[in-house]
Amino acid sequence: MANSRSGDSVTDRLVRVLETFTTDRTVQTASEIGRRAALPSSTAHRIVDDLVAAGLLDRDDEHRVRLGMRLWELALRGSRALRLRQAALPHMERVQARIREHTQLAVLEQDSALFLERLSHPDAVSNITRIAGRLPLHASSSGLVLLAFGPAELQERVLQERLTAVSAETVTDAAALRRLLADIRRTERVVAPGSIETLATGVAVPVRDADGDVIAALSVVLPRETQPDVAIAELLRAARAIRADLAAAGHVSGR
Amino acid sequence: MANSRSGDSVTDRLVRVLETFTTDRTVQTASEIGRRAALPSSTAHRIVDDLVAAGLLDRDDEHRVRLGMRLWELALRGSRALRLRQAALPHMERVQARIREHTQLAVLEQDSALFLERLSHPDAVSNITRIAGRLPLHASSSGLVLLAFGPAELQERVLQERLTAVSAETVTDAAALRRLLADIRRTERVVAPGSIETLATGVAVPVRDADGDVIAALSVVLPRETQPDVAIAELLRAARAIRADLAAAGHVSGR
Repeated sequence: MANSRSGDSVTDRLVRVLETFTTDRTVQTASEIGRRAALPSSTAHRIVDDLVAAGLLDRDDEHRVRLGMRLWELALRGSRALRLRQAALPHMERVQARIREHTQLAVLEQDSALFLERLSHPDAVSNITRIAGRLPLHASSSGLVLLAFGPAELQERVLQERLTAVSAETVTDAAALRRLLADIRRTERVVAPGSIETLATGVAVPVRDADGDVIAALSVVLPRETQPDVAIAELLRAARAIRADLAAAGHVSGR
Repeated sequence: MANSRSGDSVTDRLVRVLETFTTDRTVQTASEIGRRAALPSSTAHRIVDDLVAAGLLDRDDEHRVRLGMRLWELALRGSRALRLRQAALPHMERVQARIREHTQLAVLEQDSALFLERLSHPDAVSNITRIAGRLPLHASSSGLVLLAFGPAELQERVLQERLTAVSAETVTDAAALRRLLADIRRTERVVAPGSIETLATGVAVPVRDADGDVIAALSVVLPRETQPDVAIAELLRAARAIRADLAAAGHVSGR
């Protein structure tokens, strides 16, 4: 593919344009996109025009653009995210109906926990995860599960980094984190009180595919005072049911 | 953006590569992609390499590629599809819990009904819709609702086409279809027996945003012998609730 003078490919610049859209910034002008993507204005306008012509961006009457339904369609058709999420959804609904708190499915992606699905409950405690949002591996219950069962190389890399405290209770000591990861591998669960928000406890378990590989983390966010036992039992039951469904459907491993 | 000699932009070629992935074809080699996208092999390999480098495609040990989680993330963050679907999901769950059949949310996209969400029930009758799948406007209950409330220009275009019969009961006569669309606008519902599958009846209602514009269709698929009255009441109630939630959240119109 043609490279620009700065050496990055057109694909890179296109990704940089798409990256300027976030859950909080859904409508932008081409000039704003150029500034945020650090692209020359003429380049940004040309890429935006091409993306509008291809249907990946939609332009409104005020010349602002937003992500198009066509992009959503292309990204979802044939994606592992959709397959895994479809297998998990009925079981997540059961967990959410019984526990009546946020119920979430996350996968490991580029050193973060990426949330594929979140079922909310109107009365549930606050929770900062969003669909297509990310949380740090060491500072969320889902992330801890994904890290515990992730590649050894990833664990060593995270353990050698300076671990950021997201709340006062985030585990930031490498030795303590190493022990916690070993605990998670042994018990197939984590209860992480206040690691993201002081008033909430994250409870997560691994989801395995037919081959036994951990492909996701299933979690609920409980009010701090709630005992996690019932939630753990529901999550473990759901994870087993998802694995059975994936095996029955012949789905390929998620990662 | 740099244009190739054939006059299509790099963005076009990139979209053509992504378009080769479908719900039934999730893993391909670069050579297969080139053939299916009608691109020279060297071009296909270069675009695939760039997409892998950007994380939009993942490559496995056998040099086959599939859509990456990163593409899913970029497409969903800040997308209207996600916002609308999140507003609709709790109400769809209620419909599905009461009717116990497939419950679906579709939007108008490029002259088709594009399905954003589908809740299945293990015992439900068969149904060919899939998430991120499409159905013809004139031959599905969701599509008929979207067409009835769609732009007049779209209706005239569809009415002037040769209407394909998907089943023996698909309405293919332009005058009959015009009357059906007027009925749907008057009654805010459609009951479409066997328009896609002989054994099933599609029942759909419009979903309006805070401004009263129709932004989606909400539908269930009933066994042919089931009376649609309860389903219609549940769908209308859910559509009103979604509209109220969209108004409360200050969401912008879906289209």
